[in-house]
Amino acid sequence: MSGAQMPRRASLAAFAALAAGTTASAQPIPRDGPEVVMLVHPGMILLDLVAPMTVFNLMGATLRLAWKDLSPVPTDVGLPVTPTSRLADLTPGAPILFLPGGLGGSVALMDDPEVLAFLAAQGAAARWVTSVCTGSLVLGAAGLLRGHRATSHWYVRDLLPLMGATMATDRVVLDGNRMTGGGATAGVDFGLRLAAEIGGEALARRIGLVLEYAPDPPFGPGSPEASPGAVPDVLARRAPVLATARAAALRAQRRLGT
Amino acid sequence: MSGAQMPRRASLAAFAALAAGTTASAQPIPRDGPEVVMLVHPGMILLDLVAPMTVFNLMGATLRLAWKDLSPVPTDVGLPVTPTSRLADLTPGAPILFLPGGLGGSVALMDDPEVLAFLAAQGAAARWVTSVCTGSLVLGAAGLLRGHRATSHWYVRDLLPLMGATMATDRVVLDGNRMTGGGATAGVDFGLRLAAEIGGEALARRIGLVLEYAPDPPFGPGSPEASPGAVPDVLARRAPVLATARAAALRAQRRLGT
Repeated sequence: MSGAQMPRRASLAAFAALAAGTTASAQPIPRDGPEVVMLVHPGMILLDLVAPMTVFNLMGATLRLAWKDLSPVPTDVGLPVTPTSRLADLTPGAPILFLPGGLGGSVALMDDPEVLAFLAAQGAAARWVTSVCTGSLVLGAAGLLRGHRATSHWYVRDLLPLMGATMATDRVVLDGNRMTGGGATAGVDFGLRLAAEIGGEALARRIGLVLEYAPDPPFGPGSPEASPGAVPDVLARRAPVLATARAAALRAQRRLGT
Repeated sequence: MSGAQMPRRASLAAFAALAAGTTASAQPIPRDGPEVVMLVHPGMILLDLVAPMTVFNLMGATLRLAWKDLSPVPTDVGLPVTPTSRLADLTPGAPILFLPGGLGGSVALMDDPEVLAFLAAQGAAARWVTSVCTGSLVLGAAGLLRGHRATSHWYVRDLLPLMGATMATDRVVLDGNRMTGGGATAGVDFGLRLAAEIGGEALARRIGLVLEYAPDPPFGPGSPEASPGAVPDVLARRAPVLATARAAALRAQRRLGT
């Protein structure tokens, strides 16, 4: 069985178990899908993590929540997340590397040698190097987006070229084995795109139906293009943290020589 | 200051703090928004909880995660949630009552006298009685949807009339002070609708922009209308748990006399 075939079969088997109702009746989905290393970090946006987790879980993925130690990590909504794995204990080789965002937390990681070394090593060995929201800034700082198209939250995506990437404004950007999503709520779009790459479009469509992913933003899309009037206000009020993000990207640029 | 004005002012103040970057820099958002009692239950879909939490948090809400005891509650993705409040310790009066879904867990609650009594008392006093996904089945079993339009996950929403509700198929259904959302991923749509009701449309639009809520389902909407070919397959494979849901709704019908 080739590596390319294996995840597809595993995912479809897991979906069959899901669709048979084993999730609802609290029997575990078979853990025969891909292994995913998800970096969890202080101040992350929990939604950035949970939306992709929900899709990966339906694929039967084995989820490793990785951080420096196993102490609970605080998140934006006050629900802490307990890591399952220490960075030092995870040897490279997991097929999927994923980073959630959260601007303040992401900026802190962009200058963190232990995290950047971990990501560079994991990313070099991974089949997929992925993120949602400002997680892509950290991938960039680790040198993992050089030469790739990528996206991020709308208010920081212009920083990606400082780290050697080509900025894109799509909701989800696939370039080679890099898949990056837009801000916060892009996690389901991202997860379904990755599910399709790994398990096929039919799998992604059925997961979308099980999760009833038929979004209907009540006041139109929350994008700078659709709400230009609100953009200057948000940018002005977030100016301090955006300035720290730019400074971190410039430091990364010097380190990377990009 | 009237009750109607208070939440709007509080929410806008909290948003100003958010937009100034205090979330990203790990300073807390002022907790001057509405109090929300969120029932957390074993087997719930974590995304059902976290998406509304993310919106409520940006409104400066005080979030109470309520369950019978304070032991961590398991969720679909393997990340447990630790309740903050015991049902017995929460007197009615919080302005917002919210229920996440998760089919197996919801069905169990539909016959749970302690939970149903708690919900009936909280719901009678709340300004807003709300749910996402199959959480509405539990509201229905508690008698809280009698005479109201409501929705649920597409594969169980036809059970709502058994409990005295009128079934609707909209993504988010507002009827009086009841607001119910569709399956799993409806949480952001729901949260923004409720944010607009409480804090005004401008607040909801700005939260949508901060969360970059510009969804783009990669293979079209995950709804039975858009993917009719996949529906019989999902229904057939979920038949066992769907049968338990129908039996629970019929028992509720007899109890409620609806």
